[in-house]
Amino acid sequence: MKILIIGAAGMVGSKLAQRLTTDGSLQGKAINSLTLADVVPAQAPTGFGGKLAIKTLDLTSPDAAESLIRERPDVIFHLAAIVSGEAELDFEKGYRINLDSTRDLFEAIRKANQADGYRPRLVFASSIAVVGAPLPFPIPDDFHTTPLTSYGTQKAICELLLSDYSRKGYFDGLGIRLPTICIRPGTPNKAASGFFSNILREPLVGKEAVLPVDESVRHWHASPRSAVGFLIHGAGIDLEKVGARRNLSMPGLSATVGEQIEALRRVAGDKAVKLIRREPDEMIMRICAGWAPGFEAKRARELGFTAETSFDEIIRIHIEDELGGRI
Amino acid sequence: MKILIIGAAGMVGSKLAQRLTTDGSLQGKAINSLTLADVVPAQAPTGFGGKLAIKTLDLTSPDAAESLIRERPDVIFHLAAIVSGEAELDFEKGYRINLDSTRDLFEAIRKANQADGYRPRLVFASSIAVVGAPLPFPIPDDFHTTPLTSYGTQKAICELLLSDYSRKGYFDGLGIRLPTICIRPGTPNKAASGFFSNILREPLVGKEAVLPVDESVRHWHASPRSAVGFLIHGAGIDLEKVGARRNLSMPGLSATVGEQIEALRRVAGDKAVKLIRREPDEMIMRICAGWAPGFEAKRARELGFTAETSFDEIIRIHIEDELGGRI
Repeated sequence: MKILIIGAAGMVGSKLAQRLTTDGSLQGKAINSLTLADVVPAQAPTGFGGKLAIKTLDLTSPDAAESLIRERPDVIFHLAAIVSGEAELDFEKGYRINLDSTRDLFEAIRKANQADGYRPRLVFASSIAVVGAPLPFPIPDDFHTTPLTSYGTQKAICELLLSDYSRKGYFDGLGIRLPTICIRPGTPNKAASGFFSNILREPLVGKEAVLPVDESVRHWHASPRSAVGFLIHGAGIDLEKVGARRNLSMPGLSATVGEQIEALRRVAGDKAVKLIRREPDEMIMRICAGWAPGFEAKRARELGFTAETSFDEIIRIHIEDELGGRI
Repeated sequence: MKILIIGAAGMVGSKLAQRLTTDGSLQGKAINSLTLADVVPAQAPTGFGGKLAIKTLDLTSPDAAESLIRERPDVIFHLAAIVSGEAELDFEKGYRINLDSTRDLFEAIRKANQADGYRPRLVFASSIAVVGAPLPFPIPDDFHTTPLTSYGTQKAICELLLSDYSRKGYFDGLGIRLPTICIRPGTPNKAASGFFSNILREPLVGKEAVLPVDESVRHWHASPRSAVGFLIHGAGIDLEKVGARRNLSMPGLSATVGEQIEALRRVAGDKAVKLIRREPDEMIMRICAGWAPGFEAKRARELGFTAETSFDEIIRIHIEDELGGRI
């Protein structure tokens, strides 16, 4: 089994590479080749016994897609994208990377399919940004995609392409609409959504964190471990059961900021909660108001995708996976 | 007021050109320039008093889009596309014409917008093919787009691009999801949907027509006159009222084939109905089963778009517009 991860240097990509390495197999088949591609060198996972290749390349260069599939990987995880804020600031770059390089990949596979029958499983990381306010709660599986960002538009277009190329039999695609990943490891960043992670991650290690919105803000979350689990499950799922509608809103946890804080209190005590400093930010509040409060994710649940059911669990996963199990 | 119609040689395009000529104005402003563009020469409308240009060009050529907007038309009607069957047979051509040449047009406008502030109204002909079975009846406005053809995929992608370019202020776009146009003038064609028109148009002039499906088949119709009306109304509508969701399912008439036939009987008598020959066609029946039975079209109705409310009316419009008012 040969696996290719595109966007392997990112947070989810590197965790996916490590999980595949630890599992040693996918769909019951031993993984003997793992290629990690990104614009910057991906980190090698610990303990991979097969053939490991780390490819550094510009996905927008003319022959990038063709070179990536030259060895005919059986499963491709396509996670590469520039983030929402950057795609909004640089319209051309957003379309070039998030749309055109995905289409280049799909086209390269289609041409290989026509040349030699190549037909890989392709798991694509989409996003809840494909929907846009006003939104019902919970958002049903058949709700329309009316994104309010260029990033969301690019993801929604890639979803449509993925379905069409799959319908034509050029590859076996599955689009995975990831919830907001919480708790993101690392340091506080400037993403408007960063506070959802910051207010938990920082107090857990005795540091202050800023909360820019009201505690009533409701959003849709899953842990990094769940995100990796979605991708792995998607790579093995029976596509006959999925049918023609290949883009699935993943399960997740719908919670308010207040509920996040109460979970932190239960897990780490009042001392941790006191480290959250309230600094209302009008701009972030306005952006937040357009975000998804939560999805029904009925189809994905029926297809066996699972996520956390409480923020206590999300916090405990962070403690296990990032803090060595102790706070 | 300068107007550009792209795809002006088609049935709807030529009727639109004639209607604009007859009206003489759009949004209360006199039309002093009308450009009709297509891959084949469009027919000149009768009686246009202003500057008329008929442009024959390949929309996929590198400078086509730029040349089309060189004179900065105030309103652009973009109707050009290859049809569903052809896009399904020729994957590359479908994407090149239905997606890439639309994106080229949007890009040319964006660059003009950045150069000199150009910001036209752009009315785009989308299609009910953006949805795909299984479908509820009626289909609500917020139903997801999961097309089952490459044509529908290409239209759905153009809808997403149109919303994003409009949101960024590059142009003022509106996507119009046209119902199946009935009664299509002309001669019977091989389109799978052709029979909806054939079984009315042919008997009205004493000719036989073939019905390949059961009378219980339900579909979504509007007359050519309504289609032109949608485009004209869309060109003048207050986009503040439309908001961010720029693609609208048009109103139409949901009717079964049996209801079509009863309307024909009321308008043209048993003699006409007897000219319909039943020749069940398994393939057409299978294709039909995936088509939209009808839309709620609540938003479009509230925004003032109107269509026929009976098939008697659709037949009478055909008699008025195509048969000189008499059968």
